Amino acid sequence: MDDAVLENIFLLVLVTLLSVVQNVFFALKVEKECKANTSKQQCAGFERLSCATRNCMDTYPTFLAVMWCAGICLSQAPAAFAGVIYLVVRQKYFVGYMGQTCQSIPGFLFGKRILFFLSLMCIVGIINYLLLNYGGNDYKGYIQTITQAASTLLLLP
Amino acid sequence: MDDAVLENIFLLVLVTLLSVVQNVFFALKVEKECKANTSKQQCAGFERLSCATRNCMDTYPTFLAVMWCAGICLSQAPAAFAGVIYLVVRQKYFVGYMGQTCQSIPGFLFGKRILFFLSLMCIVGIINYLLLNYGGNDYKGYIQTITQAASTLLLLP
Amino acid sequence: MDDAVLENIFLLVLVTLLSVVQNVFFALKVEKECKANTSKQQCAGFERLSCATRNCMDTYPTFLAVMWCAGICLSQAPAAFAGVIYLVVRQKYFVGYMGQTCQSIPGFLFGKRILFFLSLMCIVGIINYLLLNYGGNDYKGYIQTITQAASTLLLLP
Repeated sequence: MDDAVLENIFLLVLVTLLSVVQNVFFALKVEKECKANTSKQQCAGFERLSCATRNCMDTYPTFLAVMWCAGICLSQAPAAFAGVIYLVVRQKYFVGYMGQTCQSIPGFLFGKRILFFLSLMCIVGIINYLLLNYGGNDYKGYIQTITQAASTLLLLP
Repeated sequence: MDDAVLENIFLLVLVTLLSVVQNVFFALKVEKECKANTSKQQCAGFERLSCATRNCMDTYPTFLAVMWCAGICLSQAPAAFAGVIYLVVRQKYFVGYMGQTCQSIPGFLFGKRILFFLSLMCIVGIINYLLLNYGGNDYKGYIQTITQAASTLLLLP
Repeated sequence: MDDAVLENIFLLVLVTLLSVVQNVFFALKVEKECKANTSKQQCAGFERLSCATRNCMDTYPTFLAVMWCAGICLSQAPAAFAGVIYLVVRQKYFVGYMGQTCQSIPGFLFGKRILFFLSLMCIVGIINYLLLNYGGNDYKGYIQTITQAASTLLLLP
């Protein structure tokens, strides 16, 4: 596709690639654990790993969809930044997964705040587009500045 | 991205956001059931809920991909309409999931008709593009009208 | 959307549709096996089928994301070609799935080479865009030719 399109999405593509690398890392972890799956204790470890991976994978399409929508509707830099933070949260979730039963720890639906922020970006972007189209006002410049400032708030624990 | 692009996809973005909200609702349901997971009977309930969520999640990327392709290839209004109906069907499927074993009820692959309709839209859109490019005919106007009329047929039970 | 966009993605849409058909085929297989799920031996068969489907579904969003990114960043023909090969590999994986326990066979993460190739295409595309934007060189023509030649290497077993 031409470069005008690429200009608006190349950060999103980079974050997507990063998430794919993380997915492959998760899958390789499970595969390695699976091959060493002999004793009883390791079996529980495999169960946990497999469960953590499944939780991560279940929310993956949701995350991708929201990130791309937010990036296309409003602006790509905050969306990609939120995406990177989501990946960090996911990594921490995967490493620290210590639940006894499947999906029993509080962090089952991790990254709720980031998904909420990205959804908000989508909605603001669409409202801005509708205002521009039917009302004649264009707040996109202001909104992008505010969004970029607000995205740093995601860094708060 | 610029507004010319947004004009053609903002309905799709809205449906995607709606589906994300539904996904979060499913996940919260499972999490809530999981925390109250003490007696034997509730455990079966958790199994069922978890299974219903997994079935929904397994078809989620397929649905997103087909809806976006249909919206981009042909026109967004019928695609978004079919997407909303798909979400309603999914909600009904989730609420009414009463299977004893995993994926054992007839509605395992729910929304087949909607997926078929969306796939058809993609194919028609591509054929129309190829005809336009190599044959010089452009039936897009007619096809969009027919599609919009046909999409109401999805409302039939 | 207008035809200039469709020109650059219609092969990707076709491959996506093909993958959706394959997903539906997998789901129908599981559903059929599930309904005939009475004796003990068939139950094991159902477990295997369900597991194979889940493995395929877990990597499906990853595959879609990488293929679309590669197709948009660089060029669609090699990306779609790699996508078709991925689908063939997945079909072979599904048919030949003979693992006793879940995800225990070496081919758990099938199609690694194809995902790697597609990721490489994304990275090359972005680097080329950045070079073009900040350095003034445009190697896109050369790179596309090289990619199309390299994509045939995926046919090697």
